[in-house]
Amino acid sequence: MSRPARVTHASTRAAVLDLVRAAGMISRVGLVNASGLTGGTISTVVRGLIDEGLVAETGHAESTGGKRRVMLQLNHFARYAVGVHLDDARITYVLTNLGGAVVARISRPGSASEDPAAVVARMAREVDALIDSVGVDRDRVLGLGLVSAGSPGFGEDLERATGLPVVLDDDATAAAIGEHWSGGVGATATFAALCMGSGIGAGIVLGGTTYRGPGGQAGGIGHACLDVDGPPCPCGARGCLEVLAGPAAVVAQARANRSLARAAGLGRKGSAPVAADFAAISRAARQGDGRALALLERSARYVAAAARTLANALDLEVLVLTGPSFAIAGSTYLPVLREELDRAFIARGVHPVSVRLSPSAASAPAIGAAAIVLQSELVPRSQGLRLPDDLAAGEPPVFQHAR
Amino acid sequence: MSRPARVTHASTRAAVLDLVRAAGMISRVGLVNASGLTGGTISTVVRGLIDEGLVAETGHAESTGGKRRVMLQLNHFARYAVGVHLDDARITYVLTNLGGAVVARISRPGSASEDPAAVVARMAREVDALIDSVGVDRDRVLGLGLVSAGSPGFGEDLERATGLPVVLDDDATAAAIGEHWSGGVGATATFAALCMGSGIGAGIVLGGTTYRGPGGQAGGIGHACLDVDGPPCPCGARGCLEVLAGPAAVVAQARANRSLARAAGLGRKGSAPVAADFAAISRAARQGDGRALALLERSARYVAAAARTLANALDLEVLVLTGPSFAIAGSTYLPVLREELDRAFIARGVHPVSVRLSPSAASAPAIGAAAIVLQSELVPRSQGLRLPDDLAAGEPPVFQHAR
Repeated sequence: MSRPARVTHASTRAAVLDLVRAAGMISRVGLVNASGLTGGTISTVVRGLIDEGLVAETGHAESTGGKRRVMLQLNHFARYAVGVHLDDARITYVLTNLGGAVVARISRPGSASEDPAAVVARMAREVDALIDSVGVDRDRVLGLGLVSAGSPGFGEDLERATGLPVVLDDDATAAAIGEHWSGGVGATATFAALCMGSGIGAGIVLGGTTYRGPGGQAGGIGHACLDVDGPPCPCGARGCLEVLAGPAAVVAQARANRSLARAAGLGRKGSAPVAADFAAISRAARQGDGRALALLERSARYVAAAARTLANALDLEVLVLTGPSFAIAGSTYLPVLREELDRAFIARGVHPVSVRLSPSAASAPAIGAAAIVLQSELVPRSQGLRLPDDLAAGEPPVFQHAR
Repeated sequence: MSRPARVTHASTRAAVLDLVRAAGMISRVGLVNASGLTGGTISTVVRGLIDEGLVAETGHAESTGGKRRVMLQLNHFARYAVGVHLDDARITYVLTNLGGAVVARISRPGSASEDPAAVVARMAREVDALIDSVGVDRDRVLGLGLVSAGSPGFGEDLERATGLPVVLDDDATAAAIGEHWSGGVGATATFAALCMGSGIGAGIVLGGTTYRGPGGQAGGIGHACLDVDGPPCPCGARGCLEVLAGPAAVVAQARANRSLARAAGLGRKGSAPVAADFAAISRAARQGDGRALALLERSARYVAAAARTLANALDLEVLVLTGPSFAIAGSTYLPVLREELDRAFIARGVHPVSVRLSPSAASAPAIGAAAIVLQSELVPRSQGLRLPDDLAAGEPPVFQHAR
């Protein structure tokens, strides 16, 4: 855990709040030890957090000296955040509480062929429905995190339409932050979240810190080269993972076999979003169609090779499969990736790579989007929007704000 | 630049010294601004550095208020370090001064077929010859950095034989540190040094900080997969960069053409180290042998594809080609890598990847090894051997010590 250095009030507050969240229950002395802040600072910050209703005192724990200490815990229902994952096939909405737990979730058709104004208007209605479904007071909703594979380009419009502050981010990075924040991987883990929806991307966390790269473009594993003489990719190169074996490639291969296409219920090319067609093929494989299964297993070999390349480059400890397409087909991919990394990760003599399927793969990017809001919006707007890396005790996101 | 937090005396001293080194000339006020330390701390630390002869006062600079400030600079010849790059084909030795400038350099046959005891005895003699060649007082030599692709396994023996503290590291990581420390790339750059000797590895620096990975195994780009159905690699996988197109693969391809093998002067398989055979093929290509050139250009296509994969994963800003094999063949590889990254780096709309050939490719790992010694040995031994990441203003190496 990084230690606060020169703390401003706002970032100290966010750091202390995140320590309380991560600990579950912790005493003021525990916060002093974990934060490196003085007892006086902790006392002041905690008083403020209690006054705002964010933290509550809750019983006592026996201290080593026999004296009983007041324990603190997060008031989970003091604030909420909306997380939205925008994909061609689906828009997934979650409402989480201050602890990051999902209290409402809805999933609606994607934005593939709608014009942006219509998407924004619909999303605003769907966000209203999400919040209303659990009767949460809108004043307690801190903001909305919107994540997607590319930039949606209508963050400001969505901010106006919903009246909520909007934070934009990459979906794979959000998925990684969600996995990290929910405690599914260790606080200082070095891991990648391999996120598959319509495409494939990676969210990267190195030693507990999100890595986005100088241009915010890190994790482009969908364009890992797996065949120098392979088919051309829209990115300008040849033989990229996505063009060889991503969801669109799997769908194209299935469609080339008319009998398989019919069995899987694929319509004409372009009649459905890629991730929806991919899901149909995955369902066919689950129901025993050997041709569909063979296509997924072929894809898995390529994904495994790209995952191995990434693990070898970054010395990864954990690889999490997540996103809507792994939610449905992950059980086919998981054993292939595990086998590849057990057999051929170059540092396997030093440590293994643990390969896991996210327990909430379909919602992980949306949950991560809400986590980014919680972390960012708890820092007062006037204090700027970036949590400094050395101050955020849990997860320091560097996010773009929509306006 | 990261800012010091809770500083111990030893690491403050190292951080201040590195700021003086990096700045060339700097005032005490400049050090306060750059370090975030108080004026009192800077004053105390600088007095100590002057007393030790490491830093000297040197003239004055006009300050903005019209008052003239005393400027400080490194006493470059106060201390020295030995850097050694151990490769099958060559052992490269450099002696650098405190500023990292090479004051002596020798290159001797590699360690391919010698037994470890003989290698250690020979290396001790060669280190003596290196230091004696410029008449440097041995008491001023801080230590010896020994870098190689794998662990040489005789660090302690070399420490006994030379009487110098020995620090071990990976050669590609050392090359990256050398490039970074010498100012060839920006202080906060995100870059990889692609290092080719007998094999291929990458040293990774993210936002100015060396990235080694939790097991110290990051940068294994030689085992990037470029063909899922490719030839088996000793690592356990198929189609790795090294087995398809590394120096050993190029040599095997050349040897398969008896006329080319003869023209390049290749002996029987195993009669010379891989890097020496690779150098012979590179010389033949330079002298106009089209078959040799075609093999190198084929290799370059694979290296370029792996470099693109790494750049896409990490959002790299700079890629430096370095190491003995790029020293001789880099001019063939450079345009192929440049073309690939200009055309197909996925974030090229955000920023380009600058691809460069190291100006000292043959010695870069050895120079980096010496830089690691300078940085580590300037922290008193009793204070432990790891420069904390948040304190080293320039380059924070996490190194293994031989004992």
